[in-house]
Amino acid sequence: MQHEASSFFGTEPGHFTLAWPGEALFGPGCAERVTGWAVSRGLRRPLLVSDPGLVASGLASRVLDGLRAAGMVPVLYDGVAANPTIDNVTQAHARWGEAECDGVVAFGGGSVIDVSKVLVARLCSDAPLADLLREGDARIVRAAPPFAALPTTAGTGSESTTAALIKDAEGRKHVLRSRRCRPQWVALDPLLTMSTPPGVTASTGFDVVMHALGAATNRAANPVGDALALAALARSFGSLPAVLARPDDLDARADMMLSSYLAGVAISLRGVDGIHGLCTPLEALVSAPHGHVLAVTCEPLMRFNLATMSARYAQVAAACGLDGGTAAGEAAMAEALIERVCALRDLAGLPRSLAQLGVTRDALAPIYDVAQANASVQLNGRPMTREDIVALYDAMV
Amino acid sequence: MQHEASSFFGTEPGHFTLAWPGEALFGPGCAERVTGWAVSRGLRRPLLVSDPGLVASGLASRVLDGLRAAGMVPVLYDGVAANPTIDNVTQAHARWGEAECDGVVAFGGGSVIDVSKVLVARLCSDAPLADLLREGDARIVRAAPPFAALPTTAGTGSESTTAALIKDAEGRKHVLRSRRCRPQWVALDPLLTMSTPPGVTASTGFDVVMHALGAATNRAANPVGDALALAALARSFGSLPAVLARPDDLDARADMMLSSYLAGVAISLRGVDGIHGLCTPLEALVSAPHGHVLAVTCEPLMRFNLATMSARYAQVAAACGLDGGTAAGEAAMAEALIERVCALRDLAGLPRSLAQLGVTRDALAPIYDVAQANASVQLNGRPMTREDIVALYDAMV
Ligand SMILES: [Fe+2]
Ligand SMILES: [Fe+2]
Repeated sequence: MQHEASSFFGTEPGHFTLAWPGEALFGPGCAERVTGWAVSRGLRRPLLVSDPGLVASGLASRVLDGLRAAGMVPVLYDGVAANPTIDNVTQAHARWGEAECDGVVAFGGGSVIDVSKVLVARLCSDAPLADLLREGDARIVRAAPPFAALPTTAGTGSESTTAALIKDAEGRKHVLRSRRCRPQWVALDPLLTMSTPPGVTASTGFDVVMHALGAATNRAANPVGDALALAALARSFGSLPAVLARPDDLDARADMMLSSYLAGVAISLRGVDGIHGLCTPLEALVSAPHGHVLAVTCEPLMRFNLATMSARYAQVAAACGLDGGTAAGEAAMAEALIERVCALRDLAGLPRSLAQLGVTRDALAPIYDVAQANASVQLNGRPMTREDIVALYDAMV
Repeated sequence: MQHEASSFFGTEPGHFTLAWPGEALFGPGCAERVTGWAVSRGLRRPLLVSDPGLVASGLASRVLDGLRAAGMVPVLYDGVAANPTIDNVTQAHARWGEAECDGVVAFGGGSVIDVSKVLVARLCSDAPLADLLREGDARIVRAAPPFAALPTTAGTGSESTTAALIKDAEGRKHVLRSRRCRPQWVALDPLLTMSTPPGVTASTGFDVVMHALGAATNRAANPVGDALALAALARSFGSLPAVLARPDDLDARADMMLSSYLAGVAISLRGVDGIHGLCTPLEALVSAPHGHVLAVTCEPLMRFNLATMSARYAQVAAACGLDGGTAAGEAAMAEALIERVCALRDLAGLPRSLAQLGVTRDALAPIYDVAQANASVQLNGRPMTREDIVALYDAMV
């Protein structure tokens, strides 16, 4: 993955690629327009990919009913797990084949959209799934079927990113990186996020902040991703506290949804940093939500980066309107950025140590090498040696 | 056009669309990769749309040679005029048909890319051209052929915008608005802009500033276009003086090219404002470069807007790092923005009055109504009555 990811997010100054995600609508109620999208694409048998919670809530039925009312025969796959597996993709693929589906509508959070992206890749390639997950677009040989996404959480930004995370039978996480298997049409409808439970709002919201921060401070050369990352970070610094304090505030939910999407576009252009890089190997050891593991890795990484990244951290703080005190110097502004992130972590009630995740020091030895090879570790603003990685994990215990 | 444009750039807060342009590569030398793009799309007979100057310079031949070396039989249409006409589209369309072309490569400035966009629309629709120009995507019924653009000026941003300007036989300007007829692949190669003559650098560069400013301060509801407009404006405030002072500075040329592209994306999401709105009707009266006419309309419009837009102008100034003096208040910061724009206009050696363009007061009467119906006038931050329009034009004489 190392090689693919470093060419995916270029680091040569002055050279970069702008590969944009699909068209997105934004606004309360816009999810209803998925029916019109399906009609415009000539769909007869769309596959709705979702999860048991959204079916139980009745929300999935509303999408299905809309499609039926327009004369389509939608097919439901609602088996996506919270940490989705290759089995989920295999099951969805079987449903697609049995029912002779002709398009995909992902209705759910990041897990549902990730399974849908891997399904679409599966439909566009004859390569073994392991090769497809490792090589991404290089193995895509057919045009994608019509593919829409209706996100129901503000978090992963999967609707706009090039990545999809999936676990194999041994619990290892794999990342599909593909520009061509992204949803072509996205409805960002904040009404769908109004009933997100507080814990999910907190952990997925913190993921947004980590995406924006990582894209704004890593080594990638893309200045457009940079501008979008700063816009997402500044917005989420305001909207995450707002949705935590007032879960029913539609404007705050909308702001958080836009932050999530923009952070997703930013990481699709620039990738993330060592905060995610050290998080991913830990996720093979625990089943905690992604945002909980990021909450543990973020502060040690930010403090580690400070040694060489102080000026950039200070710039980011200024772009987000943080105040490091009267006529604050670089060090004070950089510190203000770290403090804001840590305050959000605490406000969201997220863990600060590996002990809180149930991980002991003994369990860490096998992941040092995995972390060193991680693409996001290699994109980190301050280069990280194996000794740095060991020390950083140790500091998290 | 009024109705179409106001629905194109929504003004209802909290509701907007993110329809992204094609994939773009950025970096010195990246234009050579157009051959690989054409191969990947399976092209045999691409139509290269260009102009006589680029053919005379030998630059067009290099693109043709690259395509030939890969076994293609490229076809050249080099008749695009500086202010392109419907005739140019008709001629290019005839060349396409005679040679049985299978893809379009636009190689040139905004005029060349605009003609190519209208040609692509022509190929995707059976509607009369007048209807197509008026109704845009509503008349597009076929998928676009493979379409790449290699911009050779940093200015119009046509490679990323949804608009194409074209004159009819009577000299009237028409705007095609289409999201579906944009280039699908763009090479932003600053080497191609190194030989842009100083006058063209100045006038097209000022257009970039006006795109970014207009998108940042108009009534459109799209916060993503807003963030990109501010990024483009801040960047062009630095890079326009740099390319004027040092035409051979590749980094400055690259910065200006990125500003142009970003401003194009911003106006594709948000449109422009009354500065462009009052410019367009004037362009039916004169044959001056677009940037010269904008230079005349900008200051009166900005001063007109100040009455209701002072806070926003001050925000924009702050986002661009302008300094209105120690602890500057809103009025000082708004004034700093206006002064910076006027200073750039003067630095670029652009005109300040209609007299300098050869337009007398007598010639203005017929365009008042045209201006009032202009979509960009209607998107202006401060609403404009017919009396306002008359007074503004009068102030430009
Ligand atoms: Fe994440
Ligand atoms: Fe313009």
